[in-house]
Parts: sequence; C-alpha cells; structure tokens
Amino acid sequence: MKIEVLDHGYVELVESWGSDQAIIESARMSTQKGFVGWGDAEKPGDEKLLGYLWRNQHSTPFEFAGFVVEVQAPILVFREWHRSRTMSYTEASARYAPLPALDYVPTMERVLMDGGANKQAGAVAGARKLDHAAAYAWLSKVRARYEQAERDYKDALADGVPKELARILLPVGRYSKMRAQANLRNWLHFLGLRMAPNAQWEIRQYANAVASIVESLYPRTYALFQEGK
Amino acid sequence: MKIEVLDHGYVELVESWGSDQAIIESARMSTQKGFVGWGDAEKPGDEKLLGYLWRNQHSTPFEFAGFVVEVQAPILVFREWHRSRTMSYTEASARYAPLPALDYVPTMERVLMDGGANKQAGAVAGARKLDHAAAYAWLSKVRARYEQAERDYKDALADGVPKELARILLPVGRYSKMRAQANLRNWLHFLGLRMAPNAQWEIRQYANAVASIVESLYPRTYALFQEGK
Amino acid sequence: MKIEVLDHGYVELVESWGSDQAIIESARMSTQKGFVGWGDAEKPGDEKLLGYLWRNQHSTPFEFAGFVVEVQAPILVFREWHRSRTMSYTEASARYAPLPALDYVPTMERVLMDGGANKQAGAVAGARKLDHAAAYAWLSKVRARYEQAERDYKDALADGVPKELARILLPVGRYSKMRAQANLRNWLHFLGLRMAPNAQWEIRQYANAVASIVESLYPRTYALFQEGK
Amino acid sequence: MKIEVLDHGYVELVESWGSDQAIIESARMSTQKGFVGWGDAEKPGDEKLLGYLWRNQHSTPFEFAGFVVEVQAPILVFREWHRSRTMSYTEASARYAPLPALDYVPTMERVLMDGGANKQAGAVAGARKLDHAAAYAWLSKVRARYEQAERDYKDALADGVPKELARILLPVGRYSKMRAQANLRNWLHFLGLRMAPNAQWEIRQYANAVASIVESLYPRTYALFQEGK
Repeated sequence: MKIEVLDHGYVELVESWGSDQAIIESARMSTQKGFVGWGDAEKPGDEKLLGYLWRNQHSTPFEFAGFVVEVQAPILVFREWHRSRTMSYTEASARYAPLPALDYVPTMERVLMDGGANKQAGAVAGARKLDHAAAYAWLSKVRARYEQAERDYKDALADGVPKELARILLPVGRYSKMRAQANLRNWLHFLGLRMAPNAQWEIRQYANAVASIVESLYPRTYALFQEGK
Repeated sequence: MKIEVLDHGYVELVESWGSDQAIIESARMSTQKGFVGWGDAEKPGDEKLLGYLWRNQHSTPFEFAGFVVEVQAPILVFREWHRSRTMSYTEASARYAPLPALDYVPTMERVLMDGGANKQAGAVAGARKLDHAAAYAWLSKVRARYEQAERDYKDALADGVPKELARILLPVGRYSKMRAQANLRNWLHFLGLRMAPNAQWEIRQYANAVASIVESLYPRTYALFQEGK
Repeated sequence: MKIEVLDHGYVELVESWGSDQAIIESARMSTQKGFVGWGDAEKPGDEKLLGYLWRNQHSTPFEFAGFVVEVQAPILVFREWHRSRTMSYTEASARYAPLPALDYVPTMERVLMDGGANKQAGAVAGARKLDHAAAYAWLSKVRARYEQAERDYKDALADGVPKELARILLPVGRYSKMRAQANLRNWLHFLGLRMAPNAQWEIRQYANAVASIVESLYPRTYALFQEGK
Repeated sequence: MKIEVLDHGYVELVESWGSDQAIIESARMSTQKGFVGWGDAEKPGDEKLLGYLWRNQHSTPFEFAGFVVEVQAPILVFREWHRSRTMSYTEASARYAPLPALDYVPTMERVLMDGGANKQAGAVAGARKLDHAAAYAWLSKVRARYEQAERDYKDALADGVPKELARILLPVGRYSKMRAQANLRNWLHFLGLRMAPNAQWEIRQYANAVASIVESLYPRTYALFQEGK
C-alpha cells in the first residue's frame, strides 16, 4: 500500500500489527473476558465496547495495535512531524550520504491559498495581495534556486567539503526519507493534530495518506475517530 | 508459545512484529540502502551492522520490532513490572470482576535464599537465622492466610461490599493478569534490569521467560544482548 | 503545603517550577515575542493566549511548569496512580525496609457508597444488599485482619524470612509512600482521569489534593482546566 | 547564565529545579530515610549513595531535577536535537513570523576538519582533497547564497506569498530559536550522545554549553557523569 503525496513524496505501509479485535481483547483483560464477536444493527456485539472505549478516552487498548510506514517528504514537513515525540524515526542523513535531488515545488493553486484555514500562516501584514503573475514569478524563482542549490551542493561535495557541512545550503523544501513507527493511539493523536484545518496544507496531505492506511487496517476504530472529529 | 512461571503464573506470546532484518532495514534509512543479507564467518554481512548498532547504543532501529505478551503473576511482581513506563498495560481489575483464587506460595528452597544476590532484600538486622522449621511453619501460615483471605473476600462480596473495597484485604501475593506491549528496545531494557542478579528472584523468573521469547523472535539481537550483559 | 487524605495519607508539595507566565513565555517562542502582561475584563492581556492554548490543545507550553509531591497512600491507590506513565516515581520498598504499620480502614459512609458513580465497581451480581450491620461487621473484620497481618509480618521478619518475601501477605490496603514528579500538562491529564466521577473514590481524594496544589501554583491554568471539565 | 555558541547562537538558562540533594532525597524514599549530608574524604556521606545510583543505573532519582534553556541554533542543529523525544520544545515558527536574518557560516578551521572523528560524515568518495583555496571559495559562496536567500525571502513575503510557503527556500543553515525543557536524567542522556566525538561538531558545541549549565547546577552529579564517560 503506497500512496503518492505532493510532487515527489509518498507514504508506504511497511508492516502492521494488531487489529480492531486485538484492541477489544486487550481491553477485556480488565474483566478477564475475551473477544465475543462483532454484531450488527439488530444485535450489537463488541463494537459497543469499542465505541465506549473511544468515547470515554480509555486509550490504552489502542496501544495494542500499530504500524510502520516509510515516508518521503520535504524537510519542512519532517520538521513538523518530528514534534510527535511518541513515534520512532529513522531518517536519511545528509551527514552520511548525499540526499537525492528532489525538491518540493508547490502548485499554483496551492500558492494562492494564503494559509488556508490559518490566516496567521498567510501573507505578512502590509504585503501586496498575491496575484497570478507574482505567484508564477515566484515559482519560477523557486525552481531556479533549487537547481542552483543542487549544483552548489554537488560542486561542494566534489571539492571535498565534508558532507555534514555541504548540506547547510540545502533548502527546507528538499525531500528527505524516513521510517516512522507508532502504536495506533499515537497515530490517531497525530492525525487529530495534522488533519485539522489549521495544520499546514502540506502535512495535511501526508496525514490524509496515513489516515487511509488506518482506515484499511482498523476500519471500526477509524470510523469512531472520524465521528469524533 | 506459553511459558509457565512460579506456581500459577505464565508468560504467553500474543503477537509480534518486526525481525532482525527489519531492524537493519530501518537503520539503513540513514544511508538510504536496504537490507543486504546475513553473512557467515568467512564473508560477514549485515550482522556486522547489527553488532555496530547495538554496541554503539544506536537504539532507535530496535524500536522497529516488538511484541505483546499475556502475563499471570502475583501483584508484587506487577508492582515492580509497572515501573517500566515505556510499555502498554491492560490488567485485570478487581474493581470490575473478582480476581481468581490464585496465590503465590514460594517453595521451601526459595524461602531459604534470603535475598539472593541482594542482601539488602534479605532478613532484617537482628533477626534469627531462618531455619527449616521456621520456614516450614511460615509457609503453612501463608497457605492458611491465603485461604482465610479468599473466604473473607467471598463473604464480603456476598454481603454486598462493593468490589472496589472488598479487595483491600487481598494480599500482594495474589495473582493478577495483564497484557503488556513494548518495542524491542524497551523489552531489552526491561530484561537488563529484571534479569540482573540483584532483581527479586520472582520477577527474574518472568524476565527469563520473556528472554526466551526474545531469543526465538530476534535471535541475532538476543545474542548481542547476551554478549553485552 | 501538606494536605491530609483518608485516615493516614497525605499529599505534600516538595518543589515546583514554572508559572502561568512561564507557560506564556514558552508559547511565545513561536512568534518570538515574550510575555506581555495579564489584563482585566476591560482590557484583556495574555490570559487570552492562555485560554486559546488550553482550548485548542496546544499542550506543549504546559510542559514548561511542573512540581514534585510526596504522597502517602494505600497500595491499591498507588496501583492505579502508577498507570500514569509520564510521571517519575520513587517509592518506599518493602524489599529494603519494613513498611510502617499503617492500613486503610474506610469509613462506614464510604462503605455504603457501593461504587459511587461507577456501578460496575459496586456489589457483585446476586449479592445481598449491604446493610449497616453487615458493613459494620466487615469493618471490624478488616481491622482484625490488618492487626493479624502486622503480627504475622513482624513474626516472619523476626524469624529471618527475607524482607522481599515476608511482604507477600501484606494486604493492598496497606499504606506506602512515594515521591512523584510530572510537568503540568501531565498532572492535568492525571487530574482529568482521577477527579472524574467514575474514578475510585479513594484516588479521587488524592486527585482533589493535587488539584488544590495546582490551583495555588498555577491559578489561571487551573481555572481553564476547571472550566473545560 | 548565557553561553555564546557558533557565530550567532547561544544557550541560556531560563529556570532550574532540584539539586544533587533533591536526588538523594528522592532515592531515599525506597528506605524511607531522608538526606543525611555530604561528607569528605575522611568521612564520606551521601556522595556514596549518589555514586552508587549513577554507577548502577538507578536512573529515576535523576528525574527529580531539571531545567529549561533557551537556544538559538541553525536548523540543522535543531533537526538533530529534536530526535531527543523526552524533552519539551517550543520553537519559533516561520509559519507565523519571519525568522530573523541570521545564518550559520562555519569558520575556515571548521571547514577543514572533514567530519572530525567521524570519517563517514566527511568528504564523499572520489572527491578532491579540500584545500584552503577551495574552502575559501566555498565560504564566499555560502555567504552570497545566504544573502540571496534572504532577499528572495523578503521579496516573496512582500509579494504576498504565504509565510508558511515563502520559507521553503530557507537553507538549513538558517538560525531558529527554541525553549527546551527536560529532567536531569534526560539532559545527561542528551549529553552522552551529543558530546561524543562522533557527533557533528556544531551540536557538540551546544552540548558543551549545556554541560557547563549542568556542572554549575548539579556539580556532584556532573562529576559522576564525566567520570563515567
């Protein structure tokens, strides 16, 4: 399961564990009963307990499931992502190997959003109103600067500048790569923060990709998450 | 895989994820290469990297594997176990359902150990030297008190004492049950503390059982752990 | 600041750090401004930002304050408390020194509550309705069993039974002692869970004591917490 | 206490709590004794216990002290720092306010180090050997690119490009600012990783600054840390 995100990014499921049923089994330790079975509209079963756990913030059972993803994303997205301190991360390091020549160029439509739901993230006070021409010009410059940065980077490396220093000119729009691991409780917390309308549009696209993985692995839990938003 | 421990306890593997190979793959994100392959004495392969990671405390890749166990153990063992704050726990709760009538009675051999490697945990200063007869008498009393506690508990429940209060007389030698989940890094940290000779003998038996699960799931990592102890 | 709880327990403030103002200062790192000042009804100041942070779950700034308490409580209360895995704990250990002879005896009024807001924690199905006479009889037995347990414990220690084993008959109503440390975010999470009406009455008394410490140290944050409950 | 680091960075102590003595007091909960007193060569006191705790990895008592710092550092340093997941961070956000025009320019001496103790971080395979002239030329280019990036950034902001996007061309050598909070145990873990010879030279300068704060606040603990390295 690999989902493309932005111009060069992706989220790919590596491995998962647990299930909606495993969450019920763990929760049932408290009363020493096991999983009884899912029901239906007429005769509800353990979906009642799952809903009860979710709505009453009995969060620990949701730690008995989880998954690992591989992610390619711009550094500025990873900068936000890594503020989630309950995940495990291993990331490509430009100290040890040059980063691939991939950079994030927003679409024209994206540039004209101006912070989306979060006006604070939009234009500075006193700025001109961004028009099509200026946006177009800025995107051209973005492309040119990325190419220049890549040439500079390659030149510096060829000249023998240490890898760990040659990277200082790389822009935060450059792509990097990582694996991220968390249990389901923490993935859902991440989704709550990063699917929110005031999150930056770029990380929201990644969160949406993670959400579709959650939905396919843990459909009943995901339905509760969606309802609770 | 279910391992019996003490007189009524056990550790049972519920589910696992990751592998020695998954640890290598995660570590290789830093250089953007994948798993190459295990080697042998003549031509070593990725076991070299695994050893390097372990010996240099590059711990994050060991978070890309983990497992869930179900455990039955005396409350005093859980009291120590739960000091590991990086695991997830769901436990039987005597608030919601009476605990099964199982209690820990040490063997005579165990009683005569006197704190084992940890003299601080042994006899109080000024005590008589524990002899066979006194140990035997104490064990008889232990059995009698457990039986009495169980009768008291059942009577209190039958009389309508709330479950959450009826339990206050249950001794810490009573068995309870839980599921515990952690990633491999944190399981190994737990083993480091609880397999140590100065850990209480009872929890050491549980740690040994967990260790045999680690060994069967992640044999190369376990070998490094053993070597490093 | 020392608050008595139950028959022999207490919560005592040992040390604190941070303040409502320090939370604002930390939050303002994002816009690189500092603390501006508290306002009043006519001209609101930084209390607006504090409210915004709290209501929008911008939780990190609340990690820039915290405190340490010393607590004496029955083991069954500590068993629940220690499920909070984001605190630091150091506790008296009966492995190393005999626990003081203090045991929790509920009041008659408490016994007759039957699980309070949590019927699940109350009488078992099919039990007699608990009346005054049965409650009185049970409390007399509780006292007698505690005395017996203390005699047994002292006798076992005098006979040379290792401290770490002599404790197995101690009931979970016995008092122990600990220090607990957490940042304010985590203390508030603890209060949210343990002041709730469905929490066991005993731990609620401890949570209420912690709450009065929070109120005196961080009055503006505590007011927001109260409003949000 | 404010320590300058690199060309425009610093580490400044904001607030601290706990002390070497508070660590002893917390550790003594296990035996229910308090702080006895520091001794001297002739008659050693509680420094014996402190040494015992440290050498035997009884780590929890070191969580009963901690401090907050304010840090100005290049983004690439923060990228490494934030992998420590047991700290609290609030950082300047270029989503909300333009970052100040400060960029990291290494010294000539630094550029010629070539990865220092970590050859893996040095020149790429097949590179020319870096000489003075090439290093000088690269540093001139670094300065020019920083100036260009700042002009581009200001122009984009003036043209109305949203702040959260205008930043994508900022290089990872740009300075940002944060507050970081951790308990002493976690600060020492950070120092162990980041003062190590194979850590990048830049973050090592920050770790050294943090170390001098630890030394002034918790001199006895710091001496043990130094000895154990």
